[in-house]
Amino acid sequence: LEEEITPEEVKSILHQFFFYIFFLKTLHFVFQSLDYDNSENQLFLEEERRMSHMGFRCLEIRRWVICGLIGFLTGLIACMIDIAVEKLAGYKYFAVKLNIEKYTELGGLSISLILWAVLNSAFVMFGAIAVAFVEPIAAGSGIPQIKCFLNGVKIPRVVRLKTLVIKVFGVICSVAGGLAVGKEGPMIHSGAVVAAGVSQGRSTSLKKDFKIFEYFRRDTEKRDFVSAGAAAGVSAAFGAPVGGVLFSLEEGASFWNQMLTWRIFFASMVSTFTLNFFLSIYHGKPGELSSPGLINFGRFDSDSVQYNLYEIPLFIIMGALGEGNVTLSLYIHRPCLQVMEAMLVAAVTATVSFAMIYFSNDCQPLGQDNTEEYPLQLFCADGEYNSMATAFFNTPERSVRSLFHNPPGTYNPVTLGVFTLAYFFLAVWTYGLTVSAGVFIPSLLIGAAWGRLFGILLSFIIWADPGKYALIGAAAQLGGIVRMTLSLTVILVEATGNVTYGFPIMLVLMTAKIVGDYFIEGLYDIHIKLQSVPFLHSDAPPTSHWLTAREVMSSPVTCFNRVEKVGRIVDVLSNTSTIHNGFPVVAHTRKICGLILRSQLIVLLKHKVFVERASSRLSQRKLQLKDFRDAYPRFPPIQSIHVSQDERECMMDLTEFMNPTPYTVPQETSLPRVFKLFRALGLRHLVVVDNENRVVGLVTRKDLARYHVGKDGLEELHLAQT
Amino acid sequence: LEEEITPEEVKSILHQFFFYIFFLKTLHFVFQSLDYDNSENQLFLEEERRMSHMGFRCLEIRRWVICGLIGFLTGLIACMIDIAVEKLAGYKYFAVKLNIEKYTELGGLSISLILWAVLNSAFVMFGAIAVAFVEPIAAGSGIPQIKCFLNGVKIPRVVRLKTLVIKVFGVICSVAGGLAVGKEGPMIHSGAVVAAGVSQGRSTSLKKDFKIFEYFRRDTEKRDFVSAGAAAGVSAAFGAPVGGVLFSLEEGASFWNQMLTWRIFFASMVSTFTLNFFLSIYHGKPGELSSPGLINFGRFDSDSVQYNLYEIPLFIIMGALGEGNVTLSLYIHRPCLQVMEAMLVAAVTATVSFAMIYFSNDCQPLGQDNTEEYPLQLFCADGEYNSMATAFFNTPERSVRSLFHNPPGTYNPVTLGVFTLAYFFLAVWTYGLTVSAGVFIPSLLIGAAWGRLFGILLSFIIWADPGKYALIGAAAQLGGIVRMTLSLTVILVEATGNVTYGFPIMLVLMTAKIVGDYFIEGLYDIHIKLQSVPFLHSDAPPTSHWLTAREVMSSPVTCFNRVEKVGRIVDVLSNTSTIHNGFPVVAHTRKICGLILRSQLIVLLKHKVFVERASSRLSQRKLQLKDFRDAYPRFPPIQSIHVSQDERECMMDLTEFMNPTPYTVPQETSLPRVFKLFRALGLRHLVVVDNENRVVGLVTRKDLARYHVGKDGLEELHLAQT
Repeated sequence: LEEEITPEEVKSILHQFFFYIFFLKTLHFVFQSLDYDNSENQLFLEEERRMSHMGFRCLEIRRWVICGLIGFLTGLIACMIDIAVEKLAGYKYFAVKLNIEKYTELGGLSISLILWAVLNSAFVMFGAIAVAFVEPIAAGSGIPQIKCFLNGVKIPRVVRLKTLVIKVFGVICSVAGGLAVGKEGPMIHSGAVVAAGVSQGRSTSLKKDFKIFEYFRRDTEKRDFVSAGAAAGVSAAFGAPVGGVLFSLEEGASFWNQMLTWRIFFASMVSTFTLNFFLSIYHGKPGELSSPGLINFGRFDSDSVQYNLYEIPLFIIMGALGEGNVTLSLYIHRPCLQVMEAMLVAAVTATVSFAMIYFSNDCQPLGQDNTEEYPLQLFCADGEYNSMATAFFNTPERSVRSLFHNPPGTYNPVTLGVFTLAYFFLAVWTYGLTVSAGVFIPSLLIGAAWGRLFGILLSFIIWADPGKYALIGAAAQLGGIVRMTLSLTVILVEATGNVTYGFPIMLVLMTAKIVGDYFIEGLYDIHIKLQSVPFLHSDAPPTSHWLTAREVMSSPVTCFNRVEKVGRIVDVLSNTSTIHNGFPVVAHTRKICGLILRSQLIVLLKHKVFVERASSRLSQRKLQLKDFRDAYPRFPPIQSIHVSQDERECMMDLTEFMNPTPYTVPQETSLPRVFKLFRALGLRHLVVVDNENRVVGLVTRKDLARYHVGKDGLEELHLAQT
Repeated sequence: LEEEITPEEVKSILHQFFFYIFFLKTLHFVFQSLDYDNSENQLFLEEERRMSHMGFRCLEIRRWVICGLIGFLTGLIACMIDIAVEKLAGYKYFAVKLNIEKYTELGGLSISLILWAVLNSAFVMFGAIAVAFVEPIAAGSGIPQIKCFLNGVKIPRVVRLKTLVIKVFGVICSVAGGLAVGKEGPMIHSGAVVAAGVSQGRSTSLKKDFKIFEYFRRDTEKRDFVSAGAAAGVSAAFGAPVGGVLFSLEEGASFWNQMLTWRIFFASMVSTFTLNFFLSIYHGKPGELSSPGLINFGRFDSDSVQYNLYEIPLFIIMGALGEGNVTLSLYIHRPCLQVMEAMLVAAVTATVSFAMIYFSNDCQPLGQDNTEEYPLQLFCADGEYNSMATAFFNTPERSVRSLFHNPPGTYNPVTLGVFTLAYFFLAVWTYGLTVSAGVFIPSLLIGAAWGRLFGILLSFIIWADPGKYALIGAAAQLGGIVRMTLSLTVILVEATGNVTYGFPIMLVLMTAKIVGDYFIEGLYDIHIKLQSVPFLHSDAPPTSHWLTAREVMSSPVTCFNRVEKVGRIVDVLSNTSTIHNGFPVVAHTRKICGLILRSQLIVLLKHKVFVERASSRLSQRKLQLKDFRDAYPRFPPIQSIHVSQDERECMMDLTEFMNPTPYTVPQETSLPRVFKLFRALGLRHLVVVDNENRVVGLVTRKDLARYHVGKDGLEELHLAQT
């Protein structure tokens, strides 16, 4: 593989690696922000004032309908993925099992290995091609991207229909291809895309506008629905509706509101219910609603879930062990290489699995209470099966369940140890691949394996149920990697279907987070940092009271007059060296009187809303909110708008379109205060004024995201101009 | 009883009744607001800037320690209440049972009735005396008061130590006295008081200052801890740590933040764990952590918790039935009458119970799997017991559990029907009493009773497990009364210890809320309205875009100059006709340059920080943040501060003490925008300025709480000057 890497790529790899090691000290300008504060201009206020009490009630009902639809579609997608994966993986394992059984006696097991590797690589190839060539943003779990979206950062193409299609296809391929990945993380992304699509009542990719839900075509409303979609995704993936709501809240912390929370909750409910219902039909027991999520941890019997006080310190130790968070993987940029790497990993996964099954002689009697669907006899005596095969010859979900529930004595400690190591390295390698894949299940599986091992070793000293320790280990590992606490606790409790383990799981997750944060950030945060996204945490760094708005703000600021020359507007917007997205509108002596966005100016230019032309032959219709909504969210670039020399001399009256009451702060405001205002209201631009109300600067997301806490106090990142 | 009511009281009763019927159209001025926005004056900024990175870390650790303490103490209190109630109620039932058994054959059962009534009344008397004479604010569950506190309204004396003591004593008495009340609601209030006390490191009631945690002596920090305390209370009451966190979040919606949430979660965890641990010792099985809350719904076996699709509509119907929310009770104002009313209700409760037990002839065989501790044979055959007695001769928690878990056939439908009615009327009457008591358990009990009845009737048509319907009925009834959805779902799921019922419980609670809100507000909201508290909901009324800051604000505003004459300040503060708590500080031509609070001015006056005196013989020490913290939260009234005629002529320099960067809005800002800013930042005063930055008005909580949505659009409440 090394021969094919160009020098540029080597440089790029080293560059990325360097970034990874020393963390990122730059913020990119490519990422635009979302406007989570409504632009309350005259058009908007007029529309709101026209609306009756009944009108608002209808809107509210429409919001509930949309949330219901989001939940339904997300559940349906989850169901589709589940069935497709189960069918494809089933065929694969069936074929390989037959082949192995055939060749165990004949003695040509290498043929079985090749069959397995080829099948794996073939599945993975399709998935990797789709991701690498069609929509690279569909790679990975998509959770960091959704976190960014809810935080207010616009990641290009992340909520498009095309992304969804590729994501679903990709995840089916990679899971069926036997990679060390899960299908849960991608569900969260899928739910978010569904939400963004449904709530807008149109698909820009398909060029289809249903002319419904036009009121919701703005960032604020879209974000609310996307958080409902993400929650629905979690809910479908883990059968955890409350966990889903908490996930959305943990990530989109700044906009909690009771009505919204209930809608999110409703979407989650509908999602898990839909999945449950359709799976019950698929499994031939329509109406029996007992498989609420994609992953099912199986029933933990109430009698067996007791734990004792002396076990608590053990759980905490396990939590501290859970912070293995290595994501060293090569970053390859050329699509065909990416596909080949994915196929290679798929083949290696098959080979490693095969070798481990082959060389293990850990035979277990074939009992009544086994959950395996494909017990493999291999070289074991009749009536026995190879227990190593159980771990590998299975979808990871089933393996996790086996580790939780199989009776004590099912697994040999050595088998488990080797499995943990092998699977860990496979998972680490796999994480960097260009395939749609989640990290939840591999983490759970690794954790369950070493947890069970821990339990088995412990049972030499005291009595211990290894299944319980498998669960704790899984929680510790997952917590150490994703660093969520509240939502993850609820997700795991909902997935186990039993509240009794709630307290130990909490303890374990907290320990994993505290210990983990001491060493390195969580996987998603690393991912976000690697992409140098201007992500705002919930609070300003504690030692930042030294800084005031004056030091933080960008200045000088390009301002427009209330009535501005078209030529100047076009020139400012076309200036590629300083790409601004918001412009204060000022009266004489730079007194602030409004704020207008680039997107609004673009629409105005496109419709040629010029003062001189109003009286000309074109019977100029009054611009309405609808025109802005139609252009949302893909406003054309300024280059695509032709403005003639004549028109350049015209004037534009911005009064009606600007937000006349932008939030402002005085120059002396401390950074934490600016931060609080910015974050609590989901702002994109905050105007800094002097005590005469004159514009002196503008605070944007990048100005705030620059400051963060380093090892020895406040650090400032550089703003990269890439 | 009527003879003793004075004409004034009759008037007052009618007045209250009138309020209740037509709802409240006034807002009282007695309620002050809390400052959930830090006053970032020079002193504060200097302190923050002096603090090192390490200093902030220590603060953070201290916050965690406080949360741990809050959880521990709350758990301990819960444990104490539980044991005390169990012991007292145990003695009572034991005595009455012996007496009844003795007189069943002798034929003097009226003596048993009298014994029972007297015991009940005695217990209730002690509790009612404590509440009525010592601390009336300890009446009821305290949940509406805590909701108000988290919302930002200062209810006098609500988080004092004395309140806590009376509350705990009162709830033990009223539960042991057999009233139709629960001990769960008061736990939430208790947790909040514990939090407010511990976090301040002192008790003003005991005049004891531990000189610790002084940094946390301000409203913002205190609120954060109080929300942790409320969560710990829920957690201890129901064994529902996640439910506790969600309760705090639903009520204190405006200040969610990840770190805070984790601390709240931690407090909840510690609380349930402490309770669990001490109860396990009390029950003689130390270390076996299986009774996580005060109420325990008992184990629902995994096998029996299946539900089928056709049951969903039934559940929804039950949800719609759950909105019985009658709280018509007389409001009596004289303490001794209140005590007598409480004793009367206690005696009536005993009588009604006795009569129902006496006249029912519903005998059930005494099986192995009964949960009753005091099965009463009465007139039943040997080996049988009176099933009506089970419902009444028990703490309500046990009765709920019996209704959930007793095998089909345990209860006679008629018994259940009569019980539901009787208990319902008792609960309604009891709710208005001046005793510490929660409404959760009576609601659950009533709901469980009619739910089980529903299940029994249903089982004539199809097979149905009445225990399941009892649970659904309980959820419906409780949801219809308190109108919480997300938190209540989680609380109930955590209390049942089984996630499978999550989905139906959600559906039921949602239906109960939607149907209930159509008719009347929830119990707590009615309570809050009855007290005419300026409560801010999470959003402005939808049709309020018509209004702007100009119309909403109070004006003219009393402003101070940067350097102001002491005499003027004293006069303004002493003016009782306009009690303002915040004053904009202005430079020439009324340009805003800061905001100062009444409490700050009082401290300045008390320490005589006058410009002229700085050079006089008194070596005036510089005022520090500590001086403000020492005075917090009970700032002396202006009348207690003596200012001589000489001093009146001095000047005061406010520069150092005022908040130099108050949030401001232009006059044209729409009400929803003002509301959003106010609510998101937890403000108390919002200065309205014109485009020259001159102060034109001030928006406070009352100005915003005035507007609410009525039957036909926006309504405005009157501001009462009481």
